[in-house]
Amino acid sequence: MSFDRLIKKIIEKKNPTVVGLDPLVDYVPEYIRNESFSRYGETLEGAADAILRFNKAIIDEIYDLVPAIKPQAAYYEMYGWRGVKVLEETIRYAQEKGMFVMTDGKRNDIGATMTAYATAHLGETAVGSGVAEAFGADALTVNGYLGTDGIAPLLEICGKKDKGIFVLVKTSNKSSGELQDQKIGDTPVYAVMGDMCEKWGSEQIGEYGYSSVGAVVGATYPEQLTELRQRLPHTFFLVPGYGAQGGGAEGLKGAFDKNGLGAIVNSSRAVMCAYKKEGCDEKEFAKAARREVIRMRDDINSVINK
Amino acid sequence: MSFDRLIKKIIEKKNPTVVGLDPLVDYVPEYIRNESFSRYGETLEGAADAILRFNKAIIDEIYDLVPAIKPQAAYYEMYGWRGVKVLEETIRYAQEKGMFVMTDGKRNDIGATMTAYATAHLGETAVGSGVAEAFGADALTVNGYLGTDGIAPLLEICGKKDKGIFVLVKTSNKSSGELQDQKIGDTPVYAVMGDMCEKWGSEQIGEYGYSSVGAVVGATYPEQLTELRQRLPHTFFLVPGYGAQGGGAEGLKGAFDKNGLGAIVNSSRAVMCAYKKEGCDEKEFAKAARREVIRMRDDINSVINK
Repeated sequence: MSFDRLIKKIIEKKNPTVVGLDPLVDYVPEYIRNESFSRYGETLEGAADAILRFNKAIIDEIYDLVPAIKPQAAYYEMYGWRGVKVLEETIRYAQEKGMFVMTDGKRNDIGATMTAYATAHLGETAVGSGVAEAFGADALTVNGYLGTDGIAPLLEICGKKDKGIFVLVKTSNKSSGELQDQKIGDTPVYAVMGDMCEKWGSEQIGEYGYSSVGAVVGATYPEQLTELRQRLPHTFFLVPGYGAQGGGAEGLKGAFDKNGLGAIVNSSRAVMCAYKKEGCDEKEFAKAARREVIRMRDDINSVINK
Repeated sequence: MSFDRLIKKIIEKKNPTVVGLDPLVDYVPEYIRNESFSRYGETLEGAADAILRFNKAIIDEIYDLVPAIKPQAAYYEMYGWRGVKVLEETIRYAQEKGMFVMTDGKRNDIGATMTAYATAHLGETAVGSGVAEAFGADALTVNGYLGTDGIAPLLEICGKKDKGIFVLVKTSNKSSGELQDQKIGDTPVYAVMGDMCEKWGSEQIGEYGYSSVGAVVGATYPEQLTELRQRLPHTFFLVPGYGAQGGGAEGLKGAFDKNGLGAIVNSSRAVMCAYKKEGCDEKEFAKAARREVIRMRDDINSVINK
């Protein structure tokens, strides 16, 4: 009913970062792709198999260092139901290794349909006289454009099952300001959305002062990160845009509170493709991911007040 | 590169409606559930099997009358990858019967990730030296909160593969006004989003004057429907909220243009659960759905200027 489970893992590992698993098949080393394609043909099934093996190898190398992974649903849906099966398998595998899993789905809908998404990704589905877990992640990213009707069903499951959500507030992309920076009275849309996050989370605040309703705020907008950290004292931040999208560690300082908590910073491609950047043997891809994870942890910790 | 394919089907069938397939397993008649559960156990697999059989039976009874179906992704994701497999199978089955399929996924992201969603739902995925279709719908609902970066990748696929998108503009739920009715200057957020739809679609306008970028506008807000129809002359509307959510046919008049085109009205539960409302034998569920589809078509046509 808060982000305490995640925050405890961050403290334990001294690492406020999350690794995004957005595995385009082109990121997967050729020797793995070749093995999977020779086994299943050049098919969605073959691609999905390669991705699962890639994900597991990376998780094996990083789970002792990193508190969480963030699989991005789009990169699994690309491979049809076989890809979505790999999403499920990746979530379970990481959880078995003790990791916190946040599915980046940016889901949004209303009423019964939002309940269906909440059930799918965070809850348990009724089947006959019993229940079964569909995806079973620990947190889900969501889009709040539809208002409270789209968030209330999530709050119920967050409360019951100790899960969390991250609502898009100020996204990291260049055109995010087209709507999000527009002013409603004197207040930008992103701050209006942020205020709604504070309100939605107000009944579910944990021991570190953060609720189960977090916010996505891009590393590419350091001023807004600082402004929103002040404005939203109970809202934990998921911060994309470090590394591949151009945001550096210095700009992240404002995302953290005086205890060095309050945010978790994502990196996806820089970790998955570290072996390409290093230029090492592709069979070293998971070790290279581990080296990048350590570099990133130390880089980010260096700007946090402790 | 426009909604012409959909509009031609609407004209041919004299029916501006779409049937939402949001199949909670509780909507499925007991005799089908029992058969599926006895075959696969009370599992996600059993539930998914029941849903596929339910969907196919309804499609068989309505495809000659209705131009399109709108499967809602949440109700498939609830059943894990087995449910998502049924989403794929439902899309293909309806397309084989000549129906236009709009996946209601309200997807949203930026850059490469939005390209992955566009590829997943409307395009073709690269696998090795070839390509394969993942979900292959004809249109997808999306959320434009992230701005142009989140829409541009879709436009590219719409142009290349003659597909369409519906952007959330004014949603049908009670709390939609919390953000969407707020004023930016003198303009409500929903109208700002609507104006973006006109801009995004401006290069892809078809023979009926509508682009490949449609908008979701709820039947529950008749004034805004009328206002937006005037304001957004090239934007085709997907209108939820008729029937189950309380909107009636009279309020829909303003959604249509002077040629009786410009909108397609969705009904989900009233069609899927028509057999419950009628109180007929549950084995008649598909015939009851057909009767409701005819009633709805005639009800809506009665308010359209021809």
